[in-house]
Amino acid sequence: MQFLLEVVEILTNYVRKTFDRSTKVLDFHHPHQLLEGMEGFNLELSDQPESLEQILVDCRDTLKYGVRTGHPRFFNQLSTGLDIVGLVGEWLTSTANTNMFTYEIAPVFVLMEQLTLKKMREIVGWPEGEGDGIFSPGGAISNMYSVMIARYKYFPEVKTKGMAAAPRLVLFTSEHSHYSIKKASGENGHNNLDSVHNRTKCLFPLVFCLQGYVPMFVNATAGTTVYGAFDPINEIADICEKYNMWLHVDGAWGGGLLMSRKHRHKLNGVERANSVTWNPHKMMGVPLQCSAILVRERGLLQGCNSMCAGYLFQQDKQYDVAYDTGDKAIQCGRHVDIFKFWLMWKAKGTVGFEQHIDKCLDLSAYLYNKIKNREGYEMPQHTNVCFWYLPPSLRGLPDGEERRERLHKVAPKIKAMMMESGTTMVGYQPQGEKVNFFRMVISNPAATRSDIDFLIEEIERFGNDL
Amino acid sequence: MQFLLEVVEILTNYVRKTFDRSTKVLDFHHPHQLLEGMEGFNLELSDQPESLEQILVDCRDTLKYGVRTGHPRFFNQLSTGLDIVGLVGEWLTSTANTNMFTYEIAPVFVLMEQLTLKKMREIVGWPEGEGDGIFSPGGAISNMYSVMIARYKYFPEVKTKGMAAAPRLVLFTSEHSHYSIKKASGENGHNNLDSVHNRTKCLFPLVFCLQGYVPMFVNATAGTTVYGAFDPINEIADICEKYNMWLHVDGAWGGGLLMSRKHRHKLNGVERANSVTWNPHKMMGVPLQCSAILVRERGLLQGCNSMCAGYLFQQDKQYDVAYDTGDKAIQCGRHVDIFKFWLMWKAKGTVGFEQHIDKCLDLSAYLYNKIKNREGYEMPQHTNVCFWYLPPSLRGLPDGEERRERLHKVAPKIKAMMMESGTTMVGYQPQGEKVNFFRMVISNPAATRSDIDFLIEEIERFGNDL
Repeated sequence: MQFLLEVVEILTNYVRKTFDRSTKVLDFHHPHQLLEGMEGFNLELSDQPESLEQILVDCRDTLKYGVRTGHPRFFNQLSTGLDIVGLVGEWLTSTANTNMFTYEIAPVFVLMEQLTLKKMREIVGWPEGEGDGIFSPGGAISNMYSVMIARYKYFPEVKTKGMAAAPRLVLFTSEHSHYSIKKASGENGHNNLDSVHNRTKCLFPLVFCLQGYVPMFVNATAGTTVYGAFDPINEIADICEKYNMWLHVDGAWGGGLLMSRKHRHKLNGVERANSVTWNPHKMMGVPLQCSAILVRERGLLQGCNSMCAGYLFQQDKQYDVAYDTGDKAIQCGRHVDIFKFWLMWKAKGTVGFEQHIDKCLDLSAYLYNKIKNREGYEMPQHTNVCFWYLPPSLRGLPDGEERRERLHKVAPKIKAMMMESGTTMVGYQPQGEKVNFFRMVISNPAATRSDIDFLIEEIERFGNDL
Repeated sequence: MQFLLEVVEILTNYVRKTFDRSTKVLDFHHPHQLLEGMEGFNLELSDQPESLEQILVDCRDTLKYGVRTGHPRFFNQLSTGLDIVGLVGEWLTSTANTNMFTYEIAPVFVLMEQLTLKKMREIVGWPEGEGDGIFSPGGAISNMYSVMIARYKYFPEVKTKGMAAAPRLVLFTSEHSHYSIKKASGENGHNNLDSVHNRTKCLFPLVFCLQGYVPMFVNATAGTTVYGAFDPINEIADICEKYNMWLHVDGAWGGGLLMSRKHRHKLNGVERANSVTWNPHKMMGVPLQCSAILVRERGLLQGCNSMCAGYLFQQDKQYDVAYDTGDKAIQCGRHVDIFKFWLMWKAKGTVGFEQHIDKCLDLSAYLYNKIKNREGYEMPQHTNVCFWYLPPSLRGLPDGEERRERLHKVAPKIKAMMMESGTTMVGYQPQGEKVNFFRMVISNPAATRSDIDFLIEEIERFGNDL
């Protein structure tokens, strides 16, 4: 127990420093450097045990060479920040060390999951008492659930007879949607990349029908990964209704906006969806991982996934076995992802999440306004604030191949310098015809305007002489 | 930070009590009782925030009404026990709160995963430098990986063209294998339940070939869920080689035996497998969750799953991007499951895991020998110790329908009484023609012979008058 308290000391120091802006975000080293054993940090496993003193050193080193994702100046991913109540929730979850398959061994967590999912469905706008859902290991798996459930809804015999029991199915999604949609259709054996069309302009279900395909599924993204763009859900829902297609809303990133009275209009029409992915571990600041798949029609999740394993889901228990939710999952064992989220909701209230979302979007607007007329910035988008920084040496260049090639190298160079100096981290990527640009996403509750200012200063400091 | 330390106080008290045999394993309540709010424990979420004092009360209540899966007398699942180093590993993981997709944001964890997987492949017996693998959210997902990778190996065009690009594929597995194998084939769109044959007696690949099917995949289970039985891997490997089929070994439960020089012979032939599922969170006592899928041929995992998302897996980073392992995963975000396992390996050494495995199997043998000649016990199997307990009132009954019906109710009744008294927990299930029997599995490092004795006493105490 002494050992445990010594680790707690290490962890609380780490947390304290994470919120201190004079601490670096990371202490970057290349893989080969770490593998060679930095200052005695030996990653190799051995036959003989180490002392507990050495284990404490290993813990310290692990944190030292890692990345402080809770640091107010860490902007690199959609999931950032370190909520203390959420953290405590995770610590309790690991201490309880149980599994979500049955009420029997996770009574409290199973009920928390049920009540939280119910609340989320109400917020989506589905009629009270309807619907179902489950927490899954991330948005990609949640999206995969949606594809599987849709297939089960339209062609339930696929579950036992394989894809030969179904016609060739077509899924529609936009080119900016998350790659997990394409992945899910591939995994489920009925993707045809040719038929994953850019749905932002038009849908061709009828054309596919005429070719003998069955248009089955449309994904509308609420908050695309790169731009943070929102598909027009109502328009898409009209088409889905007309052609009897499943409407899935991938709100992994943007789902959190449903908590905000000011911003939820961007998801107008979400209540018409058949399923919704919503990751509280992104914009709502819940620790990793916490992703929900919500389904409007009750019974589908169970019907699609249940295998009725007799050793786990016995029907002759002394309690109401309807609470044994594990048979709805594609997993068997399932990590308890609910508790941290439930505990944060208790601690913040619905209003607290709303304030957090509003603050994040305010900071995005602040950044957007700050750089909109500033010299050296060009901007394709502004929900996630995506932008090019042009070093002075590029500003006079005419639009053309040379400018494109040089601009393409700017963001990676600045990012590498940021990482090596350890002061901040922000993502970048190319997209379609566009060369590398920065993507600034704000979900970190610890971030303030001064951190946004700092980011811009750093970009200019590193980029000025490129 | 004070709040955090108060939670630590709650958690350390909980851990201390968990190892105290005078503490109950659980304090059972029905779902409706908990939902009605036991002693003020309100599970409902509300709009307004709660005080931190109330959050502490919520934490205490959550633990109070849960199940102590680390208790020395908790035998209910394949995953039991609470290793303190593993627990500390989880606490650190939650504090670091990062994601496994890139080296950039999880440098240390990515390297730990790589080195640990390498070590596991060596223990499987594959040639040094070969193979690949990844940690996944549980054995069901690991098994799903194996089916997907096999399909990709034989019919890579399925990834982009859907199942229409492949013939009708057949998978073989035994009727005692884990349900996730059937589930994975269903998810992947090419299962035909008729063709999932009982492979323990014979394989019919040739028959299927003649019918126009392609036999593609055989699952051999190393440690079945109920009996803990081991399929003869070498015999199956011979058949797989003959018909060019993928051999997967599902060692979710029994994989841990590879750590034991005394017991690993049960998996003889595993080095001939194309892929292996191995869950350290089961017999090796690592906290939930920790499951690995190992693949013998390098490149398949990447080839099968990679989507090359430009916003995440940029190729123009300053470090060696071969370490960005996230594109191999079916997930996008991926929880850090490696650290607790790595830290436990450091603390115990390979020899420590071996001792743990040997001790668990010794305890199983102790139980088997204890009840083998004891009045009132009948036993179908003994790797997992599966047995019927016959109350005195049943012992004189002739074998027949009445005896079966009454015996079927014995295990559920005893289990319910155990749960209500809170003294111990053990699983039961029917299987095929067999009526409900107990399944005793030992993976808890805290369990001793006295706990086995206690279990038998409890079974007899509750069962004597049935």
